[in-house]
Amino acid sequence: MPEVAVLGATGYAGAIAATLVHRHPFFELRHITARSESGAVLEEIHPRTRIPLVLEDYDPDVQGDADAALVCWPHGVAAPAVAALRERGVRVVDLSADFRLRDRTAYEDWYGRHGAPELFGTAVYGLPELYREAIAGADLVANPGCYPTAALLGLAPLARAGVIGDVVIDAKSGVSGAGREPTQTTHYVTADENLRPYNVERHRHTPEIEQELAALGAALQVTFTPHLVPLAQGELVSSYVTPTRELGDAELSELYREAYDGEPWVELRLGPPGVLDVRDTNYCRISVHVDGRTGRVLVFAALDNLWKGAASQAVQNLNLMFGRDESEGLR
Amino acid sequence: MPEVAVLGATGYAGAIAATLVHRHPFFELRHITARSESGAVLEEIHPRTRIPLVLEDYDPDVQGDADAALVCWPHGVAAPAVAALRERGVRVVDLSADFRLRDRTAYEDWYGRHGAPELFGTAVYGLPELYREAIAGADLVANPGCYPTAALLGLAPLARAGVIGDVVIDAKSGVSGAGREPTQTTHYVTADENLRPYNVERHRHTPEIEQELAALGAALQVTFTPHLVPLAQGELVSSYVTPTRELGDAELSELYREAYDGEPWVELRLGPPGVLDVRDTNYCRISVHVDGRTGRVLVFAALDNLWKGAASQAVQNLNLMFGRDESEGLR
Amino acid sequence: MPEVAVLGATGYAGAIAATLVHRHPFFELRHITARSESGAVLEEIHPRTRIPLVLEDYDPDVQGDADAALVCWPHGVAAPAVAALRERGVRVVDLSADFRLRDRTAYEDWYGRHGAPELFGTAVYGLPELYREAIAGADLVANPGCYPTAALLGLAPLARAGVIGDVVIDAKSGVSGAGREPTQTTHYVTADENLRPYNVERHRHTPEIEQELAALGAALQVTFTPHLVPLAQGELVSSYVTPTRELGDAELSELYREAYDGEPWVELRLGPPGVLDVRDTNYCRISVHVDGRTGRVLVFAALDNLWKGAASQAVQNLNLMFGRDESEGLR
Amino acid sequence: MPEVAVLGATGYAGAIAATLVHRHPFFELRHITARSESGAVLEEIHPRTRIPLVLEDYDPDVQGDADAALVCWPHGVAAPAVAALRERGVRVVDLSADFRLRDRTAYEDWYGRHGAPELFGTAVYGLPELYREAIAGADLVANPGCYPTAALLGLAPLARAGVIGDVVIDAKSGVSGAGREPTQTTHYVTADENLRPYNVERHRHTPEIEQELAALGAALQVTFTPHLVPLAQGELVSSYVTPTRELGDAELSELYREAYDGEPWVELRLGPPGVLDVRDTNYCRISVHVDGRTGRVLVFAALDNLWKGAASQAVQNLNLMFGRDESEGLR
Repeated sequence: MPEVAVLGATGYAGAIAATLVHRHPFFELRHITARSESGAVLEEIHPRTRIPLVLEDYDPDVQGDADAALVCWPHGVAAPAVAALRERGVRVVDLSADFRLRDRTAYEDWYGRHGAPELFGTAVYGLPELYREAIAGADLVANPGCYPTAALLGLAPLARAGVIGDVVIDAKSGVSGAGREPTQTTHYVTADENLRPYNVERHRHTPEIEQELAALGAALQVTFTPHLVPLAQGELVSSYVTPTRELGDAELSELYREAYDGEPWVELRLGPPGVLDVRDTNYCRISVHVDGRTGRVLVFAALDNLWKGAASQAVQNLNLMFGRDESEGLR
Repeated sequence: MPEVAVLGATGYAGAIAATLVHRHPFFELRHITARSESGAVLEEIHPRTRIPLVLEDYDPDVQGDADAALVCWPHGVAAPAVAALRERGVRVVDLSADFRLRDRTAYEDWYGRHGAPELFGTAVYGLPELYREAIAGADLVANPGCYPTAALLGLAPLARAGVIGDVVIDAKSGVSGAGREPTQTTHYVTADENLRPYNVERHRHTPEIEQELAALGAALQVTFTPHLVPLAQGELVSSYVTPTRELGDAELSELYREAYDGEPWVELRLGPPGVLDVRDTNYCRISVHVDGRTGRVLVFAALDNLWKGAASQAVQNLNLMFGRDESEGLR
Repeated sequence: MPEVAVLGATGYAGAIAATLVHRHPFFELRHITARSESGAVLEEIHPRTRIPLVLEDYDPDVQGDADAALVCWPHGVAAPAVAALRERGVRVVDLSADFRLRDRTAYEDWYGRHGAPELFGTAVYGLPELYREAIAGADLVANPGCYPTAALLGLAPLARAGVIGDVVIDAKSGVSGAGREPTQTTHYVTADENLRPYNVERHRHTPEIEQELAALGAALQVTFTPHLVPLAQGELVSSYVTPTRELGDAELSELYREAYDGEPWVELRLGPPGVLDVRDTNYCRISVHVDGRTGRVLVFAALDNLWKGAASQAVQNLNLMFGRDESEGLR
Repeated sequence: MPEVAVLGATGYAGAIAATLVHRHPFFELRHITARSESGAVLEEIHPRTRIPLVLEDYDPDVQGDADAALVCWPHGVAAPAVAALRERGVRVVDLSADFRLRDRTAYEDWYGRHGAPELFGTAVYGLPELYREAIAGADLVANPGCYPTAALLGLAPLARAGVIGDVVIDAKSGVSGAGREPTQTTHYVTADENLRPYNVERHRHTPEIEQELAALGAALQVTFTPHLVPLAQGELVSSYVTPTRELGDAELSELYREAYDGEPWVELRLGPPGVLDVRDTNYCRISVHVDGRTGRVLVFAALDNLWKGAASQAVQNLNLMFGRDESEGLR
């Protein structure tokens, strides 16, 4: 059984990633690390994991003996660790943003200096529905951001068909998206019964969405605005597309069916999805509509930001990298 | 002191309207009605009102002795009651949609047959920031919908300036917006930790928004999509405007300052508003931004759907109709 | 594979019971029924089940061909259906209260006339931690109430040791405990940000708790008061025991370890449990404390009211009845 | 108009205290202080206050020119500030625990060294329903803890009547009770959908409750256990009294009516209170019941932990200290 290390296992996505690997029939969870909480047992910090392993300090010579690693660290600090693990032959899925962009200037504009420039541009973008084959052959996979996952799965059929004239993306996410660090923003009393936009005009998932839309044939600039919503896990991305030509319901349905028939983790539905429909799962649930009055195309995509938006998608990628059924351990 | 009747005082907006009138220094709460719960005392049903009055059955000969009425009934059934009260000389603020539209065909398309056609088109649209003077002279005021209130206050300065080329309106509302009737939609277990679009392509507030944008000079069709969010009260309307020409931050600020300087219930802020900022108040809080990359203008408007979106705006209108300071009893 | 029918599969517990059977490696989900929603597909009503089966009307001649049934109906109407299924040789776990009490007078006092008196007193009380062997040989198992499950698992070691002088049970439950029927009580706007006692002095789980405490050797009357808390699933039972003699921490720990060492679904912890620790699981997590100042013993027991408090415990019982590992299909 | 300083105006209770003083018809809000956020404007930090004053650093020579101060600081650091203000002739309501206990040993056992021993024992306990006259003549008032306020208002009639044999107090509070400091406990993702006991066996409000019960004639040790509940503001205290003799409903009702008839801020109700009934108010709502089976007396008391449990009760005390109607500015 290939041994897996999860770096940053005390974060929300990290804890779920560790749980999925721990219960996985093929992989073995060998190492889990934490910065400030090393030495503790994971299940004491995250009772729901029920993982009695001790959290280690990060040390590439220790975790480097694993066959694979899921790196659940923030951007910037992730890159050097990824590089250190790759040097030791570890196959890596990196959940940070460090290897998602393929344009070095764009990375530096949005994130600053890169922490492992020698590896920049070498990762495969880990959205299995778009890059399944490349992922299967990759040693370094950049796990997509949660918003890009939902936005791209929602827009890909339109992008490929070349019918996106313009798009407004209004996204809503639960509080776990802001991370486990206690802040005024994540304080219960601030978030409860509240609802507000954040990072207006400048959310870092914007260039990632644009890069992948362009790769699908839709080179354009998008307006992307996230909102914080009072729930723990869950994300809904509402995309408003001005099409380049008139599109009818039948043509749209056909486009989406072609794109997603047979996809194990994309669910097409006639009615708009709710985030509770996909809570604690690897599913992305999508509906597409034509606004008969304006001709605009509306796409709603719901997923669990910690699962398909992070941890379970990382395991889906890991399955592919090791030649397994991509759904193994995810049901 | 003018005597006021509140019809439908057991609904969420009705109970707040009754409370505001009950505590008002100028008006006296004389009648409250309920359909199925008449005979009960209001504070037994809505403890927070602390109003010990008995709920009456609706009878125009009883409530018709009041000087004014706030009609908090659903569209369709409101119109005949409004007509009956108007016949008896009662001045009315109608919180339903029955008198908001000025185009009879549009009304019938979206709502069906009108219940008091003789009065159709005679009401003043009760958005004080747009129609203050007309409201002051009116006997029948159509209180705006919650979404139109936020959308129009957010977009009015742009509409007047003639710079709206196109607009996408993505709205989010708490569960009280769905009314007090218990349904699967409003069940705690359905709404909690959930988030989803509803009435996609066909929410009835659409023609109301378009009518008033047109009156401001922006005749266009809008895409309007509401979402249900897990909180009790609060509404955020995010508007994405494609402008007809390039707009800078300074020009935008100036437009909004001109429009709202001196307005007692509109708050302009640099950062995006949260719905908790305006909870249980008559304020609408607005921020406006230019997306420097796409040139799109983003407007966020937050209000409490039961207050500025319904009950407190009704009292603001009532104040104007009786020649009072429009803020009386609202602080 | 034994075929299983789930009666009342659209209720909250029923939907989870159906899901657990559907995914179970040994059982096959053959029938699901609903009263008002028959003809629909279960996953349209409960998307999270992802069960594409059609809901049938209840007909004992149809569902009676199953090998086993989980009856998820309210008390009163459950009993005749249980009787009809038993006549056809179906082995039944009844999730209602109809077969939990062994004293006919007590049943009639708390619930009224019994719907299948010929079967009264023939069921085994389905708390595996107390009645594992009897369940294994039973054809009719009465699945315990959610509050009794938590209360009894928390108090059993003390009851057996004969040290309970008196006990106050203060219980707190999420809103799903009130059922899927939309009511004012379960309306989001009523339950959200609220917290209150209900059924004070007269909750029907009281005689059930007393019956089983007596069976363990502690014949006494308890004060049991439930509270409604704003969360979807989860239950915490806080028991305050006045002991018959002084008890120290060491003796208590020993009592609980003896009782629960090796139990797969009871977790003893030093610190008090949170309901989120056991959400969506069959675990009951317990802590026990001595109040050094008063000598009182405090026991906290947390479980998911829809899982260990209903559906997953029913499947645990089903496993036992069919000679399987009681944990099969529950991890 | 007497000038008032609010120390610690950025905490949850402090912000509400500042708001109530700011809107008060008799007092003037002159100073507000904050530790780390001094220099900022209060409404930028707490938008709902709509107070455009600048937060000052604490300096007794600055705030000491006020006529009165509400000290909203944690225990330990409050005492020296109270002493410094008292030296300058400022009349103080201290919201910390520093002056609530009258037994120096008890203080040191539960809180450690006292920060102003020269003032120890000189404050009046600020529960107006018990100490109205003494408060009116006091220069230093110790505002009660939130749990003691609810517990004592609930139990006082029984304590005075000498009928409390024993009592178990199970308390539930919203997250604002844990303070504004962001911690893992107050993180939205930790608190949401959760429910758990905390500070089991050792909550510091225990000696405060016992001190005041003893002053009422009921010298006994209580078991007091608080629980954290997922809501922002609100507190319910459920008290289970084993009476010294049999008590009937009529006698109980009479006891409570005698105690609270004419009290402006205590509401007696037949049915158990919900915390939402008293949200954002100075009310404490109480119901009392006899468990006919066990003879135990159940008392439920609900209040808003930040209002009657802290800020509004402080203003109620301030009103009394300055010879005003105690309800002024609180409706």
